[in-house]
Amino acid sequence: MRLTTQAGGVYPIAPTPFTPDGAVDWTSADRLFDYYAGIGSDGVTVLGIMGEAPKLEPEESIGLVKRAVAKMGDKPIIVGVSAPGFAAMRSLARQVMDLGAGGVMIAPPTNLRTDDQIVGYYAQAVEAIGSDIPFVIQDYPLTLSVVMTPAVIRRIIQDNPSCVMLKHEDWPGLEKIATLRRFEAEGSLRRVAILTGNGGLFLDFEMERGADGANTGYAFPEMLIDVVRLSKAGKRDEAHDIFDAHLPLARYEQQQGVGLAVRKYVMARRGILAHDAQRKPGSTLTAAARAEVDYLLARLARHDARAAL
Amino acid sequence: MRLTTQAGGVYPIAPTPFTPDGAVDWTSADRLFDYYAGIGSDGVTVLGIMGEAPKLEPEESIGLVKRAVAKMGDKPIIVGVSAPGFAAMRSLARQVMDLGAGGVMIAPPTNLRTDDQIVGYYAQAVEAIGSDIPFVIQDYPLTLSVVMTPAVIRRIIQDNPSCVMLKHEDWPGLEKIATLRRFEAEGSLRRVAILTGNGGLFLDFEMERGADGANTGYAFPEMLIDVVRLSKAGKRDEAHDIFDAHLPLARYEQQQGVGLAVRKYVMARRGILAHDAQRKPGSTLTAAARAEVDYLLARLARHDARAAL
Amino acid sequence: MRLTTQAGGVYPIAPTPFTPDGAVDWTSADRLFDYYAGIGSDGVTVLGIMGEAPKLEPEESIGLVKRAVAKMGDKPIIVGVSAPGFAAMRSLARQVMDLGAGGVMIAPPTNLRTDDQIVGYYAQAVEAIGSDIPFVIQDYPLTLSVVMTPAVIRRIIQDNPSCVMLKHEDWPGLEKIATLRRFEAEGSLRRVAILTGNGGLFLDFEMERGADGANTGYAFPEMLIDVVRLSKAGKRDEAHDIFDAHLPLARYEQQQGVGLAVRKYVMARRGILAHDAQRKPGSTLTAAARAEVDYLLARLARHDARAAL
Amino acid sequence: MRLTTQAGGVYPIAPTPFTPDGAVDWTSADRLFDYYAGIGSDGVTVLGIMGEAPKLEPEESIGLVKRAVAKMGDKPIIVGVSAPGFAAMRSLARQVMDLGAGGVMIAPPTNLRTDDQIVGYYAQAVEAIGSDIPFVIQDYPLTLSVVMTPAVIRRIIQDNPSCVMLKHEDWPGLEKIATLRRFEAEGSLRRVAILTGNGGLFLDFEMERGADGANTGYAFPEMLIDVVRLSKAGKRDEAHDIFDAHLPLARYEQQQGVGLAVRKYVMARRGILAHDAQRKPGSTLTAAARAEVDYLLARLARHDARAAL
Repeated sequence: MRLTTQAGGVYPIAPTPFTPDGAVDWTSADRLFDYYAGIGSDGVTVLGIMGEAPKLEPEESIGLVKRAVAKMGDKPIIVGVSAPGFAAMRSLARQVMDLGAGGVMIAPPTNLRTDDQIVGYYAQAVEAIGSDIPFVIQDYPLTLSVVMTPAVIRRIIQDNPSCVMLKHEDWPGLEKIATLRRFEAEGSLRRVAILTGNGGLFLDFEMERGADGANTGYAFPEMLIDVVRLSKAGKRDEAHDIFDAHLPLARYEQQQGVGLAVRKYVMARRGILAHDAQRKPGSTLTAAARAEVDYLLARLARHDARAAL
Repeated sequence: MRLTTQAGGVYPIAPTPFTPDGAVDWTSADRLFDYYAGIGSDGVTVLGIMGEAPKLEPEESIGLVKRAVAKMGDKPIIVGVSAPGFAAMRSLARQVMDLGAGGVMIAPPTNLRTDDQIVGYYAQAVEAIGSDIPFVIQDYPLTLSVVMTPAVIRRIIQDNPSCVMLKHEDWPGLEKIATLRRFEAEGSLRRVAILTGNGGLFLDFEMERGADGANTGYAFPEMLIDVVRLSKAGKRDEAHDIFDAHLPLARYEQQQGVGLAVRKYVMARRGILAHDAQRKPGSTLTAAARAEVDYLLARLARHDARAAL
Repeated sequence: MRLTTQAGGVYPIAPTPFTPDGAVDWTSADRLFDYYAGIGSDGVTVLGIMGEAPKLEPEESIGLVKRAVAKMGDKPIIVGVSAPGFAAMRSLARQVMDLGAGGVMIAPPTNLRTDDQIVGYYAQAVEAIGSDIPFVIQDYPLTLSVVMTPAVIRRIIQDNPSCVMLKHEDWPGLEKIATLRRFEAEGSLRRVAILTGNGGLFLDFEMERGADGANTGYAFPEMLIDVVRLSKAGKRDEAHDIFDAHLPLARYEQQQGVGLAVRKYVMARRGILAHDAQRKPGSTLTAAARAEVDYLLARLARHDARAAL
Repeated sequence: MRLTTQAGGVYPIAPTPFTPDGAVDWTSADRLFDYYAGIGSDGVTVLGIMGEAPKLEPEESIGLVKRAVAKMGDKPIIVGVSAPGFAAMRSLARQVMDLGAGGVMIAPPTNLRTDDQIVGYYAQAVEAIGSDIPFVIQDYPLTLSVVMTPAVIRRIIQDNPSCVMLKHEDWPGLEKIATLRRFEAEGSLRRVAILTGNGGLFLDFEMERGADGANTGYAFPEMLIDVVRLSKAGKRDEAHDIFDAHLPLARYEQQQGVGLAVRKYVMARRGILAHDAQRKPGSTLTAAARAEVDYLLARLARHDARAAL
């Protein structure tokens, strides 16, 4: 399924499952995509920053996309294709679209500074991959140290008809969503989907400010789905209730550097992944950290039975 | 009162109160320090990053220290003296100690990279201010982009007897606290106080990992005090209960750039500050953001009566 | 003398002379300004990045401005007033203008990223110091990591009538000068003076691209003056001849971190400064480096008798 | 030929030749390697930062290595294998060694900060590519913003027997070379080759401080070869004479961003490359810049007949 500007809901950022000896765990990958489809995800993103993509061999990356398409093919698959050069970006983008991916996500390289550099980069990227491939802007200054104003995002969207989505991951970013939606209302910006990141830490209010959903990772994507659904249904208090119940764990998982270890540990405890292993070089949780996560899970289970493991 | 390695508990980072026309609001400053003392703070930090220190005239900075000492003088006053040059650092440090401050806090300049550069910087700073002034290391990589390993912190502490405290604000940082405490247990590091920052977002577990308290800002420092007290008393669940109740608001306040506006807005609603004004250039909350904070306060009030405003 | 958009020629960046024990060497300061005036400098800049300004006490900074004005008062004195906060910037700017300075130079803080942030910063700075003080934009991405496009510089100039000069220190920057002059020719930009930095390493061609002169440091400012004079007189080959003769030394002096030590060493050998000392923390030349500089001076002396020391 | 710690002399950084329509210009590639061999280069580096490596398809990268080996196979070929992930680094490293390359060059990723992070990264890289592949450390803080102290470089060399060379490209860096050689003399560091970069801008003194040669790009690598040869022969003045004659052009070519355009333009004028094209996204020289380079060439030709084009 092709990604369009009508996209919404929750697109989890998929971790890549590994066995303890560092091989891709294809069985867990299949189970993971089945799981995402089963809980009602609207799509999935693979080969993202948290997907350990740079550690994968080309054939492994392709294999992962194939599995995602096979398991979730009626839902759009977004593939991270950010690369230090346009040759690799183009090659991966064209391959995965041929395999049935719905679109690609492109993050700016960390050395971009001026507005024109950022706009120019996306123009070059589109020229490289072709204007027929739907793409997602990844706006993630905390990690990428590239700062895009709403006006810059507008220029990218207006200049490139193949841009269909903003992955909004600015921090803080509530006013940015509001500004972009105001641009649309004023008629200076065509509408694209806005899905938010940052591990969902502001999803409660992002939805209220105009986001269409979440494109992020969290060990309980069910919570993201609940918040999006309740928020769209106007059930504000219920949306915040489930959000708040998960916030202590979501916050813990959002720690840079160890966040992926937390996520995989919880997903392994939930039985979604067979192992919590990362391919080298990766981080692992200390015994103290695992005990903290277990404690958070036990506390969460009082509010959300899905956390009773 | 002089700051020592025995420090512990909560040292709020004091915002600087302003009137809407940009003058220092001395009445609110007095009320603020009375308030900090009244709720049981163990000290206070003024002229920190969130204290709008660079916007103050020298006499205003001095005035603020005088007020803090006058109102809380039996508690240690920590004064932020970070400066682009050692002349200004020395001058401010010596002045405020003469006025009765308890110690100074020094953040590294953002251009430091190697271990030796960082260690060398603190040696030079101590040489500049004098080895008789107790000082606090501010370890805050998210904002300062200077990364100190536990081994570097150990070198600074061991090299400089006047170092009495680490303001731990790494993110993530739980393992760093644990490592430093292990260094102490192994005998390779003398004990200093470790108080944590980051708006308290990990205070629940930081206490369990060996922190002595919090040295950070939050519009309800009472929560920080509760968590520290309960945690020290071994009441783990109660500590997490009050922490979790505040986490949605604490997270909202921790947004970079707008966080101070949130903090001042809440402290004004609480009657602690007369105004939520920042001196220019500052940020303000939109109507949407104020409504979000009000909503969070209303939700918090169900768990903590102090939020019923 | 007030700085205007008609400025041109050479404004050396003055080092601050110190005695070996770290005191300001006022005798050398007087000699230095006499020297600058004597060789035909068109003005001078004090308290710049290479002037060790952050190491000076406020009264020392003021003292240095007073000496410069007293010795060169019929030439414009530019004073670096960059500061982490607008209070200090305003205070210093107003003081030095009252003392007879011609204008101030403002560098952007290193955390600025977007075009709007940069433009906004200069608007705030002008509001802080007052729109009656002529100011110089310092565009120095190599050290400040703030990248200003020609369009951003145009916005700052057009928005702020008190902007009279660009200190152009981009690297590379020849096309930037050409673009700005083209903006002027097209009528989209009012004319301001463009003086160039970077230790003069591209002054030969910068003049040919439209610069009005140099605002930079080099131990032989006579060379800068020669190049500007010859270039303005249309004596291209002669301008390049003297430039090329100095380039091996100018390149050596332009090394970041040790450049100031080289400059002071040469100026002390020339008898302009009594000592090559820097106030702590500073760098010093190893014996090997001093021997290299001596060798370069001896080679230079074959082409320029002023280097025969 | 395998790269060893005995390497010395000049290893030019090869640009990748393209036709104006963006295809790799294999004819020029063959001519380029013939040329490097013909002038007496001691080896060559391909797929370096200035080799436009990220723009190449994998088969193009491999093709370039094959040509270099075929043309210069009795000289060591160094291949840049820096990559965002170890999978790609390992894959490329193993492939090119099988094809006859002499060793690989590894630059650290730009986000490394602490000493331990840098040392750890090289340990992981060696584990990934295998300890049987000779490798070169690229120490290039100006572009990579990773700062390695001499002590860190020593740890990397001592920890990893397969490290055979340091590409020294710190700026400034003369004291670093001297310090490393002193470590060797003291017995705390085994000897590795030190070849220098930065476009040769300090090669004159780098040789005198203990470098073994140059591993850098410049449109007249003959000059680098002359300087290395004369310096090793103890002909100091002659070494500086030829160096100084080239310095105005070398400096012009060393401008970041446009440097490669200058280099290719000159190499095309010299008939080594058929075109000065870069694959998109690339920079081009304006007419003004080309005229400046022509002028510099004409001036250089008065001293070096090889520049009479």
